[in-house]
Amino acid sequence: MAGCFIGIGVGPGDPKLLTVRAVECIQEADVIIAPRSEKKEDSRALFIAQSYIKAETQIIKMVFPMVNSSEVQQEAWKENRKVLRELMEQGKKVVFLTLGDPMFYSTYMYVFQELKEAGYEVENVPGIPAFCGISNFLGYPVAEGTSVLTIIPATMEEAELDKTLATADNVVLMKAYKNVASLIGKLRTAGFSGVLVSNYGLPDQKVSEWEEVERVGAPYLSTILARRA
Amino acid sequence: MAGCFIGIGVGPGDPKLLTVRAVECIQEADVIIAPRSEKKEDSRALFIAQSYIKAETQIIKMVFPMVNSSEVQQEAWKENRKVLRELMEQGKKVVFLTLGDPMFYSTYMYVFQELKEAGYEVENVPGIPAFCGISNFLGYPVAEGTSVLTIIPATMEEAELDKTLATADNVVLMKAYKNVASLIGKLRTAGFSGVLVSNYGLPDQKVSEWEEVERVGAPYLSTILARRA
Repeated sequence: MAGCFIGIGVGPGDPKLLTVRAVECIQEADVIIAPRSEKKEDSRALFIAQSYIKAETQIIKMVFPMVNSSEVQQEAWKENRKVLRELMEQGKKVVFLTLGDPMFYSTYMYVFQELKEAGYEVENVPGIPAFCGISNFLGYPVAEGTSVLTIIPATMEEAELDKTLATADNVVLMKAYKNVASLIGKLRTAGFSGVLVSNYGLPDQKVSEWEEVERVGAPYLSTILARRA
Repeated sequence: MAGCFIGIGVGPGDPKLLTVRAVECIQEADVIIAPRSEKKEDSRALFIAQSYIKAETQIIKMVFPMVNSSEVQQEAWKENRKVLRELMEQGKKVVFLTLGDPMFYSTYMYVFQELKEAGYEVENVPGIPAFCGISNFLGYPVAEGTSVLTIIPATMEEAELDKTLATADNVVLMKAYKNVASLIGKLRTAGFSGVLVSNYGLPDQKVSEWEEVERVGAPYLSTILARRA
């Protein structure tokens, strides 16, 4: 009998922000798949979920290159796909960890689609997106009443970004690390004010004023919450 | 000694989608505040959290009128505020339940701001927003890569809605119950396709094709996920 595959959102950082269902799945898993980048050995998703994983559970770290090239990713996935399918054919209960939420700007959704198309039983368990964790931590409402909330990957093309900021009122900017000083300049010019939080819920969490970020930059896991004054 | 106040997101419906921290707070609470509308006796947030509440915990249902008039709301809050402050002065550990997430289009954020300004200790615990629950349930990625996600309260003014749909690519429409046939018409015209889910995670959950919604309408807790074809 084929196994089952469960994609889990581990949330933004604090292990207590996993859902009851996510913890249950992790504890029942035969194998935990933890994504890691090609540059670093450790997996942040694994770090967050670690305390819930039983000693006898197998852990496999899988490299998912963090680049916007579908060709490079296709190559890395060939190997990952092989491993995942073997586990499924062995009848294993496989849990795949994802930072934040599985259907919200994750690499997991491609893994999910492949396994689904291959006919395997797949379940997805939602997680707290980073912007929700951050807004609750700060007591900063991301959107209220009838106002629109625009969620923007800060890695998008600059012309597209300018166009989006021109009409938005409440924004969440994810992955605000590349050219972050220029990004904050754009936000100021467009009349926004807000805050930047890095590595939310992790030991190296930091809340920064924009002035500081403009001087020293920001790490990979940085999110900006802002609204038009 | 003054008590402490914790606002908790109970998520979209399934009790297993509460976070570990939310469950912990509910179990340690002296008093649970459950919002309800003026029309109905029951509280959906309370229904979702019920299984975690200890028998000895006091439960207070509070009416928060579901209207977009700050005057009417101010009046209802006068009484709520009095009750909340009394509990705080009695040194109680008070937990306030919110559907979805506390900082994401909730009434709770106003309660939070009042108590914070009054100098009380307040904690906010994030919850899974309905759109995350729904997208994981359906295996429908809400946004990927560098694309923008636009979250729209369907109760907003029509001219504003038209303007927003004209430039959006991936949309979540919350509270898609009023004039829902007209709303779906607008989405079709703008080139979107998608799905509508009502009462997600609750016993009366329903996934509907747009054709059906156009004929029979949709209940209050309805969310549309859509993307431009």
